Amino acid sequence: MNIALLVSYDGTELNGWQVQANARTVQGTLEGAIERAFGGFSRVTGSGRTDAGVHAAGQVCNFALADAIKISPERVADALNAFLPPDVRVLESAAAPESFDACRSAKKKTYRYTLYFSRREHPLLERRAVRFGYAADLAAMRACAALVEGEHDFAAFSSTGSSVKTTVRTVYSASLSPWEEFGVRGVHLDVCGSGFLYNMVRIITGTLVEVGLERRTPQSVREAIAGQRRSLAGHTAPPQGLYLLEVYYE
Amino acid sequence: MNIALLVSYDGTELNGWQVQANARTVQGTLEGAIERAFGGFSRVTGSGRTDAGVHAAGQVCNFALADAIKISPERVADALNAFLPPDVRVLESAAAPESFDACRSAKKKTYRYTLYFSRREHPLLERRAVRFGYAADLAAMRACAALVEGEHDFAAFSSTGSSVKTTVRTVYSASLSPWEEFGVRGVHLDVCGSGFLYNMVRIITGTLVEVGLERRTPQSVREAIAGQRRSLAGHTAPPQGLYLLEVYYE
Repeated sequence: MNIALLVSYDGTELNGWQVQANARTVQGTLEGAIERAFGGFSRVTGSGRTDAGVHAAGQVCNFALADAIKISPERVADALNAFLPPDVRVLESAAAPESFDACRSAKKKTYRYTLYFSRREHPLLERRAVRFGYAADLAAMRACAALVEGEHDFAAFSSTGSSVKTTVRTVYSASLSPWEEFGVRGVHLDVCGSGFLYNMVRIITGTLVEVGLERRTPQSVREAIAGQRRSLAGHTAPPQGLYLLEVYYE
Repeated sequence: MNIALLVSYDGTELNGWQVQANARTVQGTLEGAIERAFGGFSRVTGSGRTDAGVHAAGQVCNFALADAIKISPERVADALNAFLPPDVRVLESAAAPESFDACRSAKKKTYRYTLYFSRREHPLLERRAVRFGYAADLAAMRACAALVEGEHDFAAFSSTGSSVKTTVRTVYSASLSPWEEFGVRGVHLDVCGSGFLYNMVRIITGTLVEVGLERRTPQSVREAIAGQRRSLAGHTAPPQGLYLLEVYYE
C-alpha cells in the first residue's frame, strides 16, 4: 500500500532531508522509524530535499508499506511517531493511489522565510528566525516582493553549480506579513511557486532584506531578474529562517 | 555602579534561575559571564526565580559592577553577550540607582502560558508551547480567567510545601488571546499580578485547560478560590509553556 505522510520537522539539529551515512537526516530518521515500526526497509520519497537547518511545517512524502502489515492507514502516523524523535513527527498519514509520488506529483509549494529586526539576538527567536539589524523599510520590501511574482528566468536567484534544464519558474505570490512577539518586530515572507531553484527563496530573501535596509535599490532587483547572473542578486539568507510550509497536489 | 539588565532566556536546556553546583542555571550563567567579562565575581539578583524549563522574555536583574571598570552602562549588554550562550542573552543594560533591587523593587509581573490544541505533537511548537488534546471551549476558559482577577486568597493555586506569610495576591488581569501558526490553533494566557505563589500560573493554567476540555465546571473554579485547598484546583501545567514576560517597577 502506498502511504502518504504529512511531516513536520525542526531542522536545527538535522543535516537536511537526504540520507547520509554519518549524519542525522529527515529521510534517514523516517526510514529508521519505518524499519522499527514495520520491520523492513522502505525508501521514503519526499516532495523535495531541504537543506541542513531548514524546517518544515508540511513536508509531504510517501513510502510503500508491505501488504502483510495490517494497519489502518490513518494510524500509520501514530505507529511511526512511537519511534520518532521530538524534532521529526508525522502529523497525518493516509492511503494514496499507487501512482502518487510525493516528488513528481507536486504541483506547487509554499516556503516561508521568517526574520526579525533587533539590535541584539533574542534567545526565544534564535532557533526559528533570523535577525537582520534594525527596523527595515517594509513598503520597499513589499514592492520588490511583487517584482518576483510571475514567470521569470530566476537564474540570478539560484546558487551556481546547480544543474537544471531551465531556470524559468513561476512565482504565484510573494507576500510579506508583519508579526510581533516578545516586543520584537519581524516579518514572514511567504513565496508560493511552481517549483524552486536551489537556494532560490533564501536568495530572494537576502535580496529583499538588502532593499529593506537600503543597501540596494528596487531598480537593482529588476536588473537582477533581467540580467540572470547570480552576482546581480543579494546574499543567500541563512537556512534557520526557512520553512517548507505546504506542498500542493491535484 | 548598580547595573540593571533586561534578560531573555530559552529555558529548555536550563535548570531554572537559581545557582546550583552541578547544573546549568540562568543565574550561574550570568555570573560566569560577568566574571569573564569584568574579572570578578558579582552576585546577580533576579526579580524572582523561574523553575527548570521556564522561559523569560523580560527577566530583570541587577548586579554591582566594580567602579574600576570603565564602560558605558548601555554597553554592558554587549560585553556580557560576548560570553553568553545563545539561550541566555542580555537585551538591554542601564545604570540603576543604588537603591534598586530587581527583586524587592518589583511592583508587578506578567507571565504568559502558551498552549496549543492538536491531536499530535508538533515539532515546531514542541519547545515553546504545551499541547492539550483537541480544540477547547475558549469562551468557558475566558469566563474562568475572569474569576481569578482581583484580590483573592490563592492558596488552592499554590504548590503545597511553599512557606509564605500570606497566600493573598492580586491578579490585575488574566486574558486569553488565540493564535494560529502552521495550521495549529493555540492560546496565550497572560496573567498580570502583584506577585505570584509557587506554581500559581501553572496551576491556574491547568485548571482553565480542564474547564476548556469540559473536565471541570466553571463553578468548581469558584469553589477552588473560595475553598483554598490545593486539591480543589486543577493540575500543574508543565513548565515549558511558561514565560516570564515582563516585570514592572515604579
